[in-house]
Amino acid sequence: MTRSAFPAAVDATLADYFVARRSAVTEIGADFAEAVAELEWFALRGGKRTRPAFAWTGWLGAGGAASGPAAAAVLRACTALELIQACALVHDDIIDGSRNRRGFPTVHVTFAAQHADRGWSGGAARFGVNTAILLGDLALAWADDMLHGAGLDSAALTRVQPVWSAMRTEVLAGQLMDVFGEAGTDESVRTAMRINRYKTAAYTVERPLHLGAAIAGAPADLIADYRAFGTDIGIAFQLRDDLLGVFGDPAVTGKPSGDDLREGKRTVLLAVALQRADATDPAAAQLLRRSIGTDLDDAAVERLRTLITELGAADDVESRIAELTERGLTTLHRSSATPAAQAELTAMAEAATRRSA
Amino acid sequence: MTRSAFPAAVDATLADYFVARRSAVTEIGADFAEAVAELEWFALRGGKRTRPAFAWTGWLGAGGAASGPAAAAVLRACTALELIQACALVHDDIIDGSRNRRGFPTVHVTFAAQHADRGWSGGAARFGVNTAILLGDLALAWADDMLHGAGLDSAALTRVQPVWSAMRTEVLAGQLMDVFGEAGTDESVRTAMRINRYKTAAYTVERPLHLGAAIAGAPADLIADYRAFGTDIGIAFQLRDDLLGVFGDPAVTGKPSGDDLREGKRTVLLAVALQRADATDPAAAQLLRRSIGTDLDDAAVERLRTLITELGAADDVESRIAELTERGLTTLHRSSATPAAQAELTAMAEAATRRSA
Repeated sequence: MTRSAFPAAVDATLADYFVARRSAVTEIGADFAEAVAELEWFALRGGKRTRPAFAWTGWLGAGGAASGPAAAAVLRACTALELIQACALVHDDIIDGSRNRRGFPTVHVTFAAQHADRGWSGGAARFGVNTAILLGDLALAWADDMLHGAGLDSAALTRVQPVWSAMRTEVLAGQLMDVFGEAGTDESVRTAMRINRYKTAAYTVERPLHLGAAIAGAPADLIADYRAFGTDIGIAFQLRDDLLGVFGDPAVTGKPSGDDLREGKRTVLLAVALQRADATDPAAAQLLRRSIGTDLDDAAVERLRTLITELGAADDVESRIAELTERGLTTLHRSSATPAAQAELTAMAEAATRRSA
Repeated sequence: MTRSAFPAAVDATLADYFVARRSAVTEIGADFAEAVAELEWFALRGGKRTRPAFAWTGWLGAGGAASGPAAAAVLRACTALELIQACALVHDDIIDGSRNRRGFPTVHVTFAAQHADRGWSGGAARFGVNTAILLGDLALAWADDMLHGAGLDSAALTRVQPVWSAMRTEVLAGQLMDVFGEAGTDESVRTAMRINRYKTAAYTVERPLHLGAAIAGAPADLIADYRAFGTDIGIAFQLRDDLLGVFGDPAVTGKPSGDDLREGKRTVLLAVALQRADATDPAAAQLLRRSIGTDLDDAAVERLRTLITELGAADDVESRIAELTERGLTTLHRSSATPAAQAELTAMAEAATRRSA
């Protein structure tokens, strides 16, 4: 399977999974079936399938055979990551109050609109949020069902379990620390980096690779190398995201320009800017603190962008991305992963850290 | 282990589980550890441990030995149900906007208060809800970790997996249908019964018994009898809850009198009352529809209570409870469950269906 064909394979695997559950869902009740159909549509309409791709490539790099007898089961296990991701996104959109995702209304907004359209009783917004909380829970439970029903042999499943457990705990920990971080007073680079590590790096790259390696029964040194590579590349991936959230082209990212500044996201980019401003330019620091997280107009966004650039924060973050990427790739290239997987993971790392959207 | 000692054994097992995770949690970060401590405190402070008790008794009744070598692992597996329950309650309290649970502020209210106390930025209520969404997710993920790490042998775990999967899907389906039911226009007894079946009966009695039986490797006929008994008793349990939600003594239930009427819960009791009013007393039907789910004073609650009684709805529900309980017990007594487990389950069924709180 080529890299470009992989997302479609994940889509097909996910679609099959929803089909397999359909009769039991329909038997429970029509309202439930309607809610599940929305989850299915949400899960199928999107994403780059980054996490399954890292898991699958991790498995191949540890000796898995893409045309071997275990491949279909492994693909199902890797695809289960997309159901965790569905939970994470549906709940994150509630948490952030986001109205759009992947070019469509978010799940809670969709259900709120249905409520309003039908003239139902009670608050429409609340109905939307309540439905989305429960559908996110369902996606999390089904992720698990999909992993355990993937058809892995029991030894592989036993090896996978602690990785699966750690990954879910880490992403939820990262999200919780992010919620605390946005509310609280800790502006340190260290804390922002820690949130990146758990919310993004562990969840998006490190643990998916680890999962693939665990399925393959990889030796400890390859697992350690995958994890080190995954942590570096995963953090670099998030730092690129931070830069795009402030400097990205809305036409390419699909998000309003400067969105992170309006939302007041506690990114490493912002933490570095504040640290530098505190050291050299107290008035700039004050302006940043006063502006971030408020309803900025385009001119204000542009002023903040210029300020963050002049403080050297954007260059600082670019350097971090370059260093992390280089270190990650060095680890990868001295690892015992197969040459083909090394080449693939190198391309994926570069795509993740140099992207413009 | 006697019935009265069982909840403490579950508490100790849960406490051990949180202790076992503590060092990994602390290593991730202080904010995360603080959030987990709240989840721990929530999970440990309460409940009758009904679900683990049914699972445990189901296991014993299918030949499990309370002092045998597998008992500790089985107790851990049964206790994992309490972490699903923690998720269900934490998310349900958000959904219902409940401020108190088990005599303490609910989790989202607790975090909102902390936010306010610390003078943090952003909305306190939103911080509380966001933290509680993520902590509920964590409880759901950890329930799974606890089950898979309980120490069951792999054959038992394989038997348990489909039961565990069905149970989680059913409770979430029941909750979703409940959210749809409260918003929508379906007032039928049939729909209210269906919600009971999935939200309460399957989740509280039927599947826990099934889980215990699956661990023990019970024969198909015992599983079928357990499930039939569990469905009947579980529905009767919820019908008792419906009656208590309208007629219960606040001093005993710990909930404000007539709470279900103020909240507009779509119970079977209400559905029966509406059905009867529609047939015999249109003015009463109108009054019920206009009043339910509004901010009723005590006199209005008392008037509705009288109306529901006069319509014969309370007696109707009492009859249903009696019939379901009798049928469930008949099934139990002709099953191949051990005599000790039959006696225990009979006592539990009576406690669940005749309680006053």
